[in-house]
Amino acid sequence: MDNIRTIIIDINGSDKGPENVILGASLLLAKHENVKLTLVGNKDLINESINKLNMAKDRVKIIDSKEEITNLDNIATAFFNKPNASVLLAIKELSNDKNAIGLLSAGNSGAILMGSVKYLPIQGVRPCVAAVVPSELGGWTCMLDSGANIDTTSSNLHSFAILGRDFMRQLYGIESPKIGLLSNGVEPTKGNKLVKETHHLLVEDKTLNFVGNIEGSRAFSGDCDVLVTDGFAGNQVLKATEGTAKRLITDIVKYSKKNNKPEFMEIAGYLKNKYDLSSLGGAIVLGISKPIIKCHGNSNENSFLNTGEMLLNLAENKTLFEGK
Amino acid sequence: MDNIRTIIIDINGSDKGPENVILGASLLLAKHENVKLTLVGNKDLINESINKLNMAKDRVKIIDSKEEITNLDNIATAFFNKPNASVLLAIKELSNDKNAIGLLSAGNSGAILMGSVKYLPIQGVRPCVAAVVPSELGGWTCMLDSGANIDTTSSNLHSFAILGRDFMRQLYGIESPKIGLLSNGVEPTKGNKLVKETHHLLVEDKTLNFVGNIEGSRAFSGDCDVLVTDGFAGNQVLKATEGTAKRLITDIVKYSKKNNKPEFMEIAGYLKNKYDLSSLGGAIVLGISKPIIKCHGNSNENSFLNTGEMLLNLAENKTLFEGK
Repeated sequence: MDNIRTIIIDINGSDKGPENVILGASLLLAKHENVKLTLVGNKDLINESINKLNMAKDRVKIIDSKEEITNLDNIATAFFNKPNASVLLAIKELSNDKNAIGLLSAGNSGAILMGSVKYLPIQGVRPCVAAVVPSELGGWTCMLDSGANIDTTSSNLHSFAILGRDFMRQLYGIESPKIGLLSNGVEPTKGNKLVKETHHLLVEDKTLNFVGNIEGSRAFSGDCDVLVTDGFAGNQVLKATEGTAKRLITDIVKYSKKNNKPEFMEIAGYLKNKYDLSSLGGAIVLGISKPIIKCHGNSNENSFLNTGEMLLNLAENKTLFEGK
Repeated sequence: MDNIRTIIIDINGSDKGPENVILGASLLLAKHENVKLTLVGNKDLINESINKLNMAKDRVKIIDSKEEITNLDNIATAFFNKPNASVLLAIKELSNDKNAIGLLSAGNSGAILMGSVKYLPIQGVRPCVAAVVPSELGGWTCMLDSGANIDTTSSNLHSFAILGRDFMRQLYGIESPKIGLLSNGVEPTKGNKLVKETHHLLVEDKTLNFVGNIEGSRAFSGDCDVLVTDGFAGNQVLKATEGTAKRLITDIVKYSKKNNKPEFMEIAGYLKNKYDLSSLGGAIVLGISKPIIKCHGNSNENSFLNTGEMLLNLAENKTLFEGK
C-alpha cells in the first residue's frame, strides 16, 4: 500500500492512564488503513491492550520502556537520570525513523521540549509549544509559548513570534499574520520587564506585522493571529479560559435542573461542543525538525484520534517545520 | 448629624468619562444622607455636573486638578512630573482629612500604588491590589496582586500572602484562610523562577495555611481563600476569566437569536448578572493606612455606588487596615 504514514505514540502521561491512550491509538489505526503506529511504553501492557482491542498487529511496532518522566520530576534532573523514559525514547525514534511523520505525547511539556532540543534540533532555534485556539471571529489564534518555556528572555519571545508567523502562514495561508504581545494593558508602556523589552524587539523587526499589546480578556478575540507570551503567563490565560468556560457550562446545567427547564441543556451542549478545547487535541511543538503534538494531560481517546489526524494533515504540507 | 463619613472620589480614569463618575457619586450621595463627598478633578466640569444632577452642594467639597495620569504615561516619570494629578491629590487628601474613610479611583493602578506608598505608608509593608472574586463554592477568593505590582520578588509575594490572610480573616471571619500560589501546575516543582522561590517561602512560614500551587483553571474554584501571584500573571487570569465569561454569554445571545429561541435569553441574563465582575466594583489596595478602591476602567455609575458602599462597610470594621 502506498503512502504509509508512521505515527509514534508515547502511551504515558495521560490522566486517564496508558490503556486509554492505546484505545485512542486503536481508533486511529482502525480509521486510517495507511497508518502504522509505534507505541512506546510498557511492552506487556501494550501487548495486553492490543489483544484486548483486537488491533491490527502487523501495523503496530512496540518500543519497550519501563521509565516515565512525570510532572513531579525535576525535568533537568530527570532528563539525565531517566534516559529511557518513554517520552525520550519516542522522540529518539521520531528522529531515527524516516517513515515517521510525527509523535503524540501527553507527557511532561518540559521533557518534550528538552528531548526535542536533543533529537530534533534546528540550528539556532529555541523550540516552543503553540496552542491553536478558535477565535471569536471564527478563525484561529496561535498562542505561543503555551506552557513549556516557563522562564524566557525577550530574544526567545521574538523568535517565538517568527515561528508563529511562519506556522500561521504555512498552515492557514495567512500572508502577513497579525502578531500580538500578551500584556496587562494595550498601551506600549504596559507590561512586566520581559514584555516591555519584547515590545521593543517586535516593533523593530519590520518583517513582522506587529499589532501591539493584547490583554488577557482579548487573547482569543481574533485581534491577532499569533499571540506571543512566555509559557507561564500563556498557560494562565489558556487554563483560565478553559476553566471559566467549564464553569459557565456547569452553571447552565445546574440552573436547568434547579428550575426544571430541561430545554436549557441544548445551550449547555452547544457551548460544551464549542469550548471543548481538549478535543482539539493539544499543542504543537514548533521550531524542531519533525512535528510533535503535546496532548492535554486530561485527553481522552478521541483526542488521540484527532491529534493523530492533525499529524496526517501536517504530513501533506511538506514545507511545515522544514527548511527553516 | 452623627456618623458623617467622607468619601473621596477621583473623577478621572473611567472609560466612560468624568461625567459618568460624578453621576455615580450623585447616586451615592442621594442614597446615604450621612455621606459627604470630596470630588477631585476639573472644578468647572464638577460644578457643571453638580448643578445638572442637582446634587446636595453642602455635602460636596471640590479639589481642583487639571492634571491626569493616564495609562499612556510612564508611571515613574508621571509621578514626579504631574504632582497635581487628580489621583495623587486625592490620595493626599485621604491622608490629610481625618474624616475621610476612603477613596475611589478608576485611575492608573501604578499611580495609585505609588501615591499610596508616599501618602499612606505602613512601615515595611509593600502595598498590593487585591481583587475579591466570587468562588465556585459560593464564597470569595482574594487574588493578590491583581495588576498593580507587575515586577515582584518572592519576598513581595510572601508579604502579599500575609496581607491577604489578614484581610480575609478580618473581613470574612475566616480563622485560617487557605493560601494558594498561582502556578502552571499543582506540583511543587512547577512554576517560573519567582513562583518556585515563593513556594519555598510559603512552605516555611508556619503562620500561613499554605495549600500549595493552584492552576489558572482553578483560580476561583474555592480551593483557596487567598490566591498569591505577581500582578502580571494575576491580571491575565482575571481578564481571561472576565473575557471568557463575556464571550460565552454573547454566544448564548447569538444562538438564541439565530435559532429563534428567545427563552434562552433567560440563561444569558442569569449568567450576565452572576459574572458581571465589574459591578462588584473593583480591587482594593491592601497594606496602606486607609482604604482605596481601584475601580475598573470600564466601571459605570453603579460601580461607583457599589464601591462607595464597600467603603462604608469597611468603615464599620475599625481593625481593617489599622494597627498592622
